[in-house]
Amino acid sequence: MPSSQFSLRTISKSVLETEYAVRGAVPLRALAIDRELDDPELAKKYPFDRIVYCNIGNPMLLGLEYALFLRNYIALVLAPHVLTHSDAEICRIFNCNQNCIDRARAFLAKNPSGLGAYTTTKGFPSVRREVADFLERRDGFPADPEDIYLTDGASLPVKAVIKLLSGPNPFDSAILLPIPQYPLYSATLTLCSVHAVHYELHEEDDWSVRMDELRRRVDEHHATSKSTIRAIVIINPGNPTGSVLTHKALSSLVDFCDEKGLVILSDEVYQANIYAPEPEKDRPVFHSMKKVLREWEKAKGREGPSLFSFHSVSKGVLGECGLRGGFVECCNIPKDVGMELYKVFSLCLCANTVGQLAISVMTNPPDDVGYKKHTQTVFESLERRAQILSRSLGNVPFMTCETVSGAMYAFPRIYLPEYFVTEARKANLPPDSYYCLRLLEDTGVCTVPGSGFLQQSGTFHIRLTTLEDESRFEDFLLKIRNFHFKVWADASEPERTRVEEEIKRRMKK
Amino acid sequence: MPSSQFSLRTISKSVLETEYAVRGAVPLRALAIDRELDDPELAKKYPFDRIVYCNIGNPMLLGLEYALFLRNYIALVLAPHVLTHSDAEICRIFNCNQNCIDRARAFLAKNPSGLGAYTTTKGFPSVRREVADFLERRDGFPADPEDIYLTDGASLPVKAVIKLLSGPNPFDSAILLPIPQYPLYSATLTLCSVHAVHYELHEEDDWSVRMDELRRRVDEHHATSKSTIRAIVIINPGNPTGSVLTHKALSSLVDFCDEKGLVILSDEVYQANIYAPEPEKDRPVFHSMKKVLREWEKAKGREGPSLFSFHSVSKGVLGECGLRGGFVECCNIPKDVGMELYKVFSLCLCANTVGQLAISVMTNPPDDVGYKKHTQTVFESLERRAQILSRSLGNVPFMTCETVSGAMYAFPRIYLPEYFVTEARKANLPPDSYYCLRLLEDTGVCTVPGSGFLQQSGTFHIRLTTLEDESRFEDFLLKIRNFHFKVWADASEPERTRVEEEIKRRMKK
Repeated sequence: MPSSQFSLRTISKSVLETEYAVRGAVPLRALAIDRELDDPELAKKYPFDRIVYCNIGNPMLLGLEYALFLRNYIALVLAPHVLTHSDAEICRIFNCNQNCIDRARAFLAKNPSGLGAYTTTKGFPSVRREVADFLERRDGFPADPEDIYLTDGASLPVKAVIKLLSGPNPFDSAILLPIPQYPLYSATLTLCSVHAVHYELHEEDDWSVRMDELRRRVDEHHATSKSTIRAIVIINPGNPTGSVLTHKALSSLVDFCDEKGLVILSDEVYQANIYAPEPEKDRPVFHSMKKVLREWEKAKGREGPSLFSFHSVSKGVLGECGLRGGFVECCNIPKDVGMELYKVFSLCLCANTVGQLAISVMTNPPDDVGYKKHTQTVFESLERRAQILSRSLGNVPFMTCETVSGAMYAFPRIYLPEYFVTEARKANLPPDSYYCLRLLEDTGVCTVPGSGFLQQSGTFHIRLTTLEDESRFEDFLLKIRNFHFKVWADASEPERTRVEEEIKRRMKK
Repeated sequence: MPSSQFSLRTISKSVLETEYAVRGAVPLRALAIDRELDDPELAKKYPFDRIVYCNIGNPMLLGLEYALFLRNYIALVLAPHVLTHSDAEICRIFNCNQNCIDRARAFLAKNPSGLGAYTTTKGFPSVRREVADFLERRDGFPADPEDIYLTDGASLPVKAVIKLLSGPNPFDSAILLPIPQYPLYSATLTLCSVHAVHYELHEEDDWSVRMDELRRRVDEHHATSKSTIRAIVIINPGNPTGSVLTHKALSSLVDFCDEKGLVILSDEVYQANIYAPEPEKDRPVFHSMKKVLREWEKAKGREGPSLFSFHSVSKGVLGECGLRGGFVECCNIPKDVGMELYKVFSLCLCANTVGQLAISVMTNPPDDVGYKKHTQTVFESLERRAQILSRSLGNVPFMTCETVSGAMYAFPRIYLPEYFVTEARKANLPPDSYYCLRLLEDTGVCTVPGSGFLQQSGTFHIRLTTLEDESRFEDFLLKIRNFHFKVWADASEPERTRVEEEIKRRMKK
């Protein structure tokens, strides 16, 4: 056989079928344009001088400042020889306080090999204790460090758990996924040969779940398909939707999972990003699935569904995406199944130690004025931008946008004129992908088409982050607004009127 | 359905079937004993006061010192506000030189968001350029930064490539694995539903490959099985064997892969760990598979097999296991297949940025006396320990050990008396696992049974690292020697004589 047997025909079908739009065609085109912008001649082609990467929640790329305490603490643990100098000198050089130095020394006393050794599979015991304490404070229920794995970001443990759930044989198992969803989930299900069974989030009802519909969906699936639904993915606060689930909704979901025997995968990486939609109204509240589950169990007097909940330092107010720190808490997992999960994690040996330390700072924040002020400032800016973004996009003609109550994204619905849809078809692209490419080439704003997240059939959306630098935020919004205007300027008057009325009708509902 | 549907009966069969001995039963028992040693009362049960973790190549856990330059460079990039002080002051506080400061500044100038943002899927372009330059210097052939992915350690890209190779349907594909092998490979094949087809490394012939046997193995497989062999795993220097492949052996492997249309997965994480077996003899030489492949292509005037080669900062002389820095170079990969691999890596977004910087230091080491002296000292100590370990174990009665020419492990063959094998059977354990558990409980030395790596049927081995602190090395060897003595002390004289003669006969061959 020739060397050429290595081809698309021989490689994994599941890899071929996997889609991952967040780093798909639009972002790849953005990277190519970005390279051209470095060349003064080529740059002339474009009516902008930089790419605004709104395709992915990557705050520091768009200018977020790091938390001094976090970086100083990690730097001191990384370079412990610095700790031989006087505390006063270290404080001056690092612009840190005594607390930071003491904490670095305490960590090294407990972990003499510092950051250089593989840790145990679950991570540093002392950091897992800090995570457990954080969860106890958050939920008012006990947490066991033995149930916690420190991980490289949150994507990795999601993949491990889905692999575990993939059933004795390929396509034995199915998992409930919301529409829209974060494409990590659809991609991982495809890679693991697990069926995705979709349930809709209702856009006009604040992206909420309808429980009767969900129940019907499961019964329907089990009546007509051979695969068994084993789990449900819940993303709260929502990505890409920006919505926050209520206590009642979460409690109904626990009921439902208990009734159907489902495992819960709760993606809570945006738990610190909860915004007041309007300043005069009450702030929405984040309820962790773990808390709701334990309350449910207390009321029923028995154990409820199994739960994996995921968190990370990449989001929140730290935004430390590059350090890849995450964790998963495993609740109500049968002991023997837990040992199997341990084995899957062992294969990667352990999460990077710097990410583990970042998790320590996130879950056990210092009692430090500077740190508090920094995180508060970041939070308020994120909140302002979330409000402005959804309000402004909601006011663009031929576009609607639900309130961004949480996370870092808006997911506006874009209406597209017929001529534009025809152009997209000619270009052999979904209309929203075509829209995102045109928006990118016209404005430098890089977004992700709604089709990458799945969306109700016949509707089109884009997802964009709230992360553009606040000083340029107005300009950024104007660019999107002008582009959408231009798209509609070429449409016929009757079509414009018809769609405007359709939107009005929909908004009244 | 009740919540209890989450059980061993419903989870992934491939997860259930996966084995990973490096963090398996023996190391788990070691962790449990380690916890007991913290309690003065419980500690009395054991005739030792610490566990020597020889189960895994984790140098800093056993006392390896870090390279100052590497840690300082990363610390300065992590905490760039420190760079506002005078260079003289920074040099004094960090015990670093100007070079380190300049390099940190240069990195930040190229990468203004520093370590806090997700990088592109392949990693920092500037670091990939450094890796490419390193490969060019190493091999004398060009390397393209676009063919390089910076990764979280080397295990992760191995898993991604095997997933890619897993074929359109489960068990369509097979991959050639050496016996013995590193269990990451067998475990990942099981997880990805790929058949393992084994080829033997011949212990008494320096763990070498016999090409005629390998060809026969492939032809046999294709004559009798439905799956197609798509790739071969080569571990050079060998893990667990400690052997180093010759140029001739590698060149024959390229011939063979070209003939059979196989992709090569070349695990070269121990490329810097090459030891002179005896001081008066020539040092064995590391030839990278890439270099041998390019030479082969030059001679043939055409493209050869596809190659993935893996490297990491966890081994070598840096031993930075916790930072999880690795890379894979992809050669001769069809462009469309390469795009599929890109997609798989995109799902994890990017490798942790600190590990990426560590790769930069490894591949572009500073022109710094301190750094050179440190790495030289570490290397010489590793070399001494490798030599002492294989020589000493080779001299233990009822044990043989091939020369450790590379990597960080010895893989001695242990002969076991009949009564001991019977005891193991009664304990329902493979005899070598039983041996490792008894060794652990008797001496505190934690090793991995040969069965975890696969071994020629009817033979027993253990793998242990060369990493115990040099000042305690003699004591550590004595413990193993005494334990093995004790095992044989209880055997009958006729059995002792018979096995001694068998070993003599074998050694003469």
